[in-house]
This record gives sequence, structure tokens and C-alpha cells, in this order.
Amino acid sequence: MARAWHLKSRPSGMPTSENFELKDIDLRELADGQVRVRNRWLSVDPYMRGRMNDVKSYVPPFQVGEPLEGGAVGEVVESKADGYAVGDLVQHMAGWRDEAVVQSRTAQKLPNLGAAPQQFLGVLGVTGATAYFGLIDAAAAKAGDIVFVSAAAGAVGSVVVQVAKAKGMTVIGSAGGPEKCEFVRSLGADHVIDYKAGSILKGLAEAAPDGIDVYFDNVGGDHLDAAFALARNNARFAICGMIEGYNQREPMAFRFIQRVIAARIQLKGFIVFDYFPRLPEFYAEMAPWVANGTVKSRETVVDGLENTPDAFLGLFRGENTGKMLVRL
Amino acid sequence: MARAWHLKSRPSGMPTSENFELKDIDLRELADGQVRVRNRWLSVDPYMRGRMNDVKSYVPPFQVGEPLEGGAVGEVVESKADGYAVGDLVQHMAGWRDEAVVQSRTAQKLPNLGAAPQQFLGVLGVTGATAYFGLIDAAAAKAGDIVFVSAAAGAVGSVVVQVAKAKGMTVIGSAGGPEKCEFVRSLGADHVIDYKAGSILKGLAEAAPDGIDVYFDNVGGDHLDAAFALARNNARFAICGMIEGYNQREPMAFRFIQRVIAARIQLKGFIVFDYFPRLPEFYAEMAPWVANGTVKSRETVVDGLENTPDAFLGLFRGENTGKMLVRL
Repeated sequence: MARAWHLKSRPSGMPTSENFELKDIDLRELADGQVRVRNRWLSVDPYMRGRMNDVKSYVPPFQVGEPLEGGAVGEVVESKADGYAVGDLVQHMAGWRDEAVVQSRTAQKLPNLGAAPQQFLGVLGVTGATAYFGLIDAAAAKAGDIVFVSAAAGAVGSVVVQVAKAKGMTVIGSAGGPEKCEFVRSLGADHVIDYKAGSILKGLAEAAPDGIDVYFDNVGGDHLDAAFALARNNARFAICGMIEGYNQREPMAFRFIQRVIAARIQLKGFIVFDYFPRLPEFYAEMAPWVANGTVKSRETVVDGLENTPDAFLGLFRGENTGKMLVRL
Repeated sequence: MARAWHLKSRPSGMPTSENFELKDIDLRELADGQVRVRNRWLSVDPYMRGRMNDVKSYVPPFQVGEPLEGGAVGEVVESKADGYAVGDLVQHMAGWRDEAVVQSRTAQKLPNLGAAPQQFLGVLGVTGATAYFGLIDAAAAKAGDIVFVSAAAGAVGSVVVQVAKAKGMTVIGSAGGPEKCEFVRSLGADHVIDYKAGSILKGLAEAAPDGIDVYFDNVGGDHLDAAFALARNNARFAICGMIEGYNQREPMAFRFIQRVIAARIQLKGFIVFDYFPRLPEFYAEMAPWVANGTVKSRETVVDGLENTPDAFLGLFRGENTGKMLVRL
């Protein structure tokens, strides 16, 4: 018998454990083209909060009473699909559960890059690709740029810091609390701002007296406003996430948004899915970096399927350094 | 004896006539390379409000006690510059005064396009070029796009409406009050929203049930937020101005800015000066449109140098339909 986390009710504001329910599920017999996967690692990500609202977005909303979904890595335990054998490790979207039956075309066999399986949910997975394409493509960042990245101790942010350094940029990262700031520094960031210790605007003005060329936004709100204030001419902002706004209904207020005009700021929202056709490019550059230690993989691991909602909620309490994972 | 409007004091919030002072000025004898110009038409523009603050921007701030500047068209009455003869009509930046001595290299002789002189301050001048390059380049608008433009009865907005229609786009314009809305309709807009008659968000949702591809922003605030709410995937926003914020210190609040991510919105601030090298391209397309009536030129004319501050203040009271000009 398999178990899966279901959406029990839609959260209003910050989700709580009451919004989730772990239930037994019946798994079908395999049809042709399907594989049965025993999940080993589950990904929890801030974007999942958006799918818990009943609004149209780039992915359909979760349905109340239905199982949740998310990135997962598991082992094939039964196969009726060509090219998939028992024991293969695959990556797929039927997370939040211990076992799943999936169409083989939605399960990618992990490329042989000499990496640990869970890294395909992190630095070599959607998380890493988000950091990579957001920085290189959406923000068109290049060597010599002064790059500001918020939530720099988070899953995506910590990869942005390292890719930017590998590409010859100056990096300013923000994080909450001395421990996370120390972690960001250990990744090679040139300046680190503890946003819990004072105004992010003041911190950024001190760290970047000549302004910034690129802002990689994971946070929105005051961080984005500080970036508006400090942007140099022709600055590019890649908007990856706005975690500050995910659980609140209040509008975000900006004092410096008018600088968009005078500084000719270009701001671009992006979704990593759009870059999937370019994943080979990402693997080609990232895999050697991971192998030779240029890009380090940091994980916060929570054990046990039953703790998946806790791991997810921890994202909004800042409990993760690097990628938040659930190990089954 | 010439007269010029001086900045008497920096406005705080909405400017008043107390911030301006009309004073006699001594004009120098002409040096080589200079011309003396009798101004015929003065331009007043919202961006001038920004120059009245003591902040670094894309143009230096006005100085208290010094004459104001701005676009003007006048007649050469004395010349010590090669290629400039008495009687030539020129366009230059020494506005807010009746007579000026200017370096000939900063005075462009009006091209012979069969247009009225004051049109070089409007539809064939910086105003028209702002509309043209903002729409075509900053917003990358193309035939078939659904374009929303705010302040569509204003100087820039009214040209955006007409260029967009000439290029085969669907146009939604906003304006304040029935008279201006009727004017925007007369320019060919497909839908017009009276933002004074109700919520701009509701109005835009009705006018664009399938969303918008392009937003040309002259206003900021609630208009920009409505555009975030209604943006289709890969929408492009050209940010030309945010007049709502020019006279207030409060931050602008946005409820829908997070849609930047899901809809992959690209937002770009721009300054028309950056496009000056491409003015020939603008003249080549716009001059025939003006000549054959595809693009109509609408002006609100205030008479007399002494009324220049009133004309300027009228911009923020919404007193202009089309381009606000002062005739001397």
C-alpha cells in the first residue's frame, strides 16, 4: 500500500499542517509504457505554495482532496516501459508520496554525471537550472557585472552565487542570520548582507556603493525595492520568485520603482520550464563544476514521508540552508 | 531685454506657482558658433517635475535661482554660426524664456517635412519619438498585439494609440473623463476606459477579457497594477513615465506584481534620448503619417510666456488633451 500527501484544504495566508493529509492510495496495475517508482528523495519548493491557491498560473492548481505533486527521485521497482529496467534511478513529478506509477515519458533516467541522486533535485536539477538560466539568460549577466542575489543561502540563491563567481562576476548576497551569512560567504560571495540585522536598502547601499548591474530576485518586497534604488544604468533584473508575497494578501509597496525609467532597468520574470530544451547546455557546464567542487551542493535534509509538510513549511520559516529535501 | 522663468524654490509634492519666478535676464553678445533665437513655442512636459528635485537622474536637476530649461521652437534673429541664417526655424532646449542665446550645435534646424513648427515639439518631436520607440522598440509591439496605453489622451499616449493602430494592433486606452475618452476614441482606439468612472482593473478586465500583450505606461500605480493582473504570457511593458508618483512621496503598491513570474512579463524603462541616433528612422515613418492624416496632431495651447508655469501645472491636473504647448 502506498501513501501520499493530499491537499486537505486551501491555505489562506501561511499554510499549516492542517492543510495536509497523509492518506493511503491504491496504485493501479502497470499499463504499457508505465513504471512503478519507489521514491527515495522528495523536493519541496516555495513555488508549490502558489499551486495551493485556486488560480490559473503556469501550472494548474492542486485540487482539494487530491494528492500533491512535486519533483522526486526514485528507483524503478517494476517496468512495462521500453528502456526502463528495475533498479534504474529516475526523476519525475509524482512527489509527496512514497510510491508512484508514472508514464515513462514523464520520468527521466538520471544522466550519468557522477553525481549523487538527490543532486538531480538540487544543483543538477530544476533548482540548479533555475539559477543558471535565470542568471545567464533572463538577467543576461556577464563577467564583470555586480550581481545582487536575494535568499542567497537558499536552494536557488546558493547556486546563483557560485555560478556568478565561476563566471567572473562580483556577488552580493543577502541571507537571514549570521549562520546563513557565513554559509553564503563560504560559497565565495564578495559581500553578504544579513537582512535580519538591519535595512536591506542600507545594507545594499554599503555593499554596492557604485550600484548593481544585475538583480536575481527570489524575495520581492523590500529586497526588490532596494535593487530599484541601487540599479545602475541598463541594469537587468531576473525575477525568479517573490517568497515574501506568497503567503500574504497585502500589496507590495515600492518607493523606488520609478527608477526603472531613469536607469533604463529591464526586469524579466521567468519560469525554468521554458528552458528545458536547453538542459544539455546546463549539464555540460554545471556537471564539471559540481564534479570539481567549483559549485558545491548544500542540502537540508528532513527524514521521513510523514515530515514532508514540515519540510515545506520550513521553507517559509527560513529553516533551510541550500536545498530542502525529504529523504524516504 | 529677455525674460526667463527661474526655479525660485524646490517643490515638495505638487508644485505651485510660488515655486517659479519670471525674471529679466541679460543675454550675452553672440560668440562665434552661437545664434540668438526668438522663441515661438515652448514645451512643458511631466518629466520636468523630476528635474525640480535635487536628485541625480538622467538629466541634471534644475538649480534654485537659475532659469528652467525645456524644449522650444524659435526663429533665429541673429547668427554667428555657419549654416544658420536669420529667419531659420530651430528646435533647442532653452525653453521657459522668450529669447535665448544658444550654441548652434544644440539647435537643430527644423527638417523640411511640410509640418507646422510646433509639431516638432509634439508628434514629430521628442514626444512623438517617445511614443514611437517606446512602442516599437522598448515594448517590441507588433501587428496583432493587444496594446494597453495609459494617459491615452496625453501628448505621448495619443501618439501611441495612433502608431499602434497604423501598425495593425488592437488598442485599449485609458483617459480621465468623457471628453478625453471621446478624443481617444476619435484617434481609433478599439476600447477606451474612463479611469475616473471606476476601477481601472475592472475596466481593463472588461476591455481585454483575453488579456494584453503590451502595456505602454505613462502613469504607474493602479494602471500598472492592472496591467500586471491582465498580462498574457510573454507580455512586454514599456515604462515611459509614472506621473502618479511624481508629486507624492508615498510608495506605489502593487497587488499583482507577482504575475511577472508566471506570465514571464518583461518590463523595460526607457529614455527617448537613447534613441536619438535613430531619429531618421522615426521621421521616415512618422512624417508621411502626419502628412496623410494617419497620425493626427492634437495640441492644448496656452498663450503667453507669463502663463508657462500654469501650463506646466495643468499637466498634473489633467488639463491637456494631446500636447501641452505655450505660444509666445
